[in-house]
Amino acid sequence: MKEPAPIDRLTALLADDLAQVDGHIKDMAASDIALIPKLITYIFTAGGKRIRPLLTLAFAACTGTRNPRGHHIELAAAVEAIHTATLLHDDVIDESPSRRGRTSAHMIFGNQVSVLVGDYFFARAFQMMVRSDDIRILEVLSGTAAIISAGEVTQMIHSGDAALTQERYLEVIRSKTAVLFESACAVGAMVTDAPQASCEAAGIFGMNIGMAFQLTDDALDYDSDVQTLGKPTGHDLLSGKPTLPLILAYQNGTATEKAFWQKALGKGNRRDLPRAQELIVKYEGLEHTRALAQEYSQKAIESLPLIKTSRPEVIDLLADLARQISDRRA
Amino acid sequence: MKEPAPIDRLTALLADDLAQVDGHIKDMAASDIALIPKLITYIFTAGGKRIRPLLTLAFAACTGTRNPRGHHIELAAAVEAIHTATLLHDDVIDESPSRRGRTSAHMIFGNQVSVLVGDYFFARAFQMMVRSDDIRILEVLSGTAAIISAGEVTQMIHSGDAALTQERYLEVIRSKTAVLFESACAVGAMVTDAPQASCEAAGIFGMNIGMAFQLTDDALDYDSDVQTLGKPTGHDLLSGKPTLPLILAYQNGTATEKAFWQKALGKGNRRDLPRAQELIVKYEGLEHTRALAQEYSQKAIESLPLIKTSRPEVIDLLADLARQISDRRA
Repeated sequence: MKEPAPIDRLTALLADDLAQVDGHIKDMAASDIALIPKLITYIFTAGGKRIRPLLTLAFAACTGTRNPRGHHIELAAAVEAIHTATLLHDDVIDESPSRRGRTSAHMIFGNQVSVLVGDYFFARAFQMMVRSDDIRILEVLSGTAAIISAGEVTQMIHSGDAALTQERYLEVIRSKTAVLFESACAVGAMVTDAPQASCEAAGIFGMNIGMAFQLTDDALDYDSDVQTLGKPTGHDLLSGKPTLPLILAYQNGTATEKAFWQKALGKGNRRDLPRAQELIVKYEGLEHTRALAQEYSQKAIESLPLIKTSRPEVIDLLADLARQISDRRA
Repeated sequence: MKEPAPIDRLTALLADDLAQVDGHIKDMAASDIALIPKLITYIFTAGGKRIRPLLTLAFAACTGTRNPRGHHIELAAAVEAIHTATLLHDDVIDESPSRRGRTSAHMIFGNQVSVLVGDYFFARAFQMMVRSDDIRILEVLSGTAAIISAGEVTQMIHSGDAALTQERYLEVIRSKTAVLFESACAVGAMVTDAPQASCEAAGIFGMNIGMAFQLTDDALDYDSDVQTLGKPTGHDLLSGKPTLPLILAYQNGTATEKAFWQKALGKGNRRDLPRAQELIVKYEGLEHTRALAQEYSQKAIESLPLIKTSRPEVIDLLADLARQISDRRA
């Protein structure tokens, strides 16, 4: 029998904590207004891996021993709620018809509900994190929320822009994705009063696996099918998001190929996909993107020895998780 | 020469503090992404009265003497930023073509930008309030943000519902408007470490003038013209919001009149306005709405003697302001 994947081993190890996180999320979704829990439950039952709260819990588990009030649970729940609120607004911005293989919430409930329930859940996330009673952690997480939104604005500005540079693309994914991974890890260490060096190393780990996570996602979008990733292949092309596989193919492309990308990006025409995938193969866009993701995972792993821990087995699982993230295949 | 209105006298009295609030708001709007300050500046220069931060500053000025770190400025700025973020999303939800007599931001910048910049400003508001370094205040303001969003969801659910009850309508305006007034006042007292009774009385004042404010706005919407309120008369009818003048006319109306309201509410047809105004006059909808607003202002004024103060002149101005709010005329 194959050994379970690192994420599943971490999930099993932290099952009790995760169950409490789920309870908090259910509480946050609660409202007299039936539509609110209905929409939030719809997003949750879509079956994400809850990797962000898992990271908070893992760093809380492996750093320090002080955490008498159990605030790591609340922080893990707040991190997942920020992520969920972002998803609700993302779907509206992207006009994406599906997410994780299911119809997008905004297609069923409407854009207006998605915007308002996203706002509600964002506010509930802040309420939850205030319960941590730690101003430093509140500074980190409120700053993170601002960076995510700014990253989303930048991404939107560059929608349809096939000539986006790799540097700018990396800035976008750092803001919109990696910073929340960074904070998820850092606050897990901060909440146990871990030494400054451990908190910083946790943040560096998170930032780097966040980059690896998004780069791998962006490769999979040109590589996978609905069964494996749960979203339609080519979603980024159809919705106008220039990602690294495309950026590399564009930069190295002929004038005719550049014209194709400019015409195809964001036009939502599935008939452009075969040609797009063919050009990405031609310029080895997926290989380069995956290689960069693996570099980030490697950097993440290198930060782990700086963390003071009494549970080296959790640190080992985190290293395995970093490898798993950039090794995901269609 | 006519004496300046209470709001202008309060504004003059607190001019130095208000200038600092403006500075903080400018800082919060700052971003490398030019579009963000551009949109936020567009909203601010529309020239609202900044009544919410004024209330925070007024209560900070008249309660207690302790406030060594000057956090009332930051809290006033955070309160205004929450309000502004809400406006950005409101315009998207309402599909309103104008606000305060100018083209709505979302019409110029697009819905997607309005949603994301609203998120950004909301996060920046949280960053700003975290600087108050006071967990109780953070609990109040994060709870307020959740209540506002829930109120907006309820309002949206009842869009186009002419049969909305007065009780439910009052719940909606309490959530979407009055709770932020309540918090604006309460945190102004809390930040000076005012006695519990003063903080509570400040909150009660705010809640009641918030109700008076929204009721009067809702009356003016059937009463005013673009010159005085800065938004087109009948905006609520056209955008589908059942407000008290309409609710009263509907409840007391004949079957034919009820059918008219059901047909007109939310259809966006300006030709329905004269008949709507005629029916509201017939059932004295504006008089009843204004009378209720005045009751709320009266309740607000009655809470003021419970506030321990060394500056009775500020308390007197707040009482005058409560009267001004429910006396606004087209």
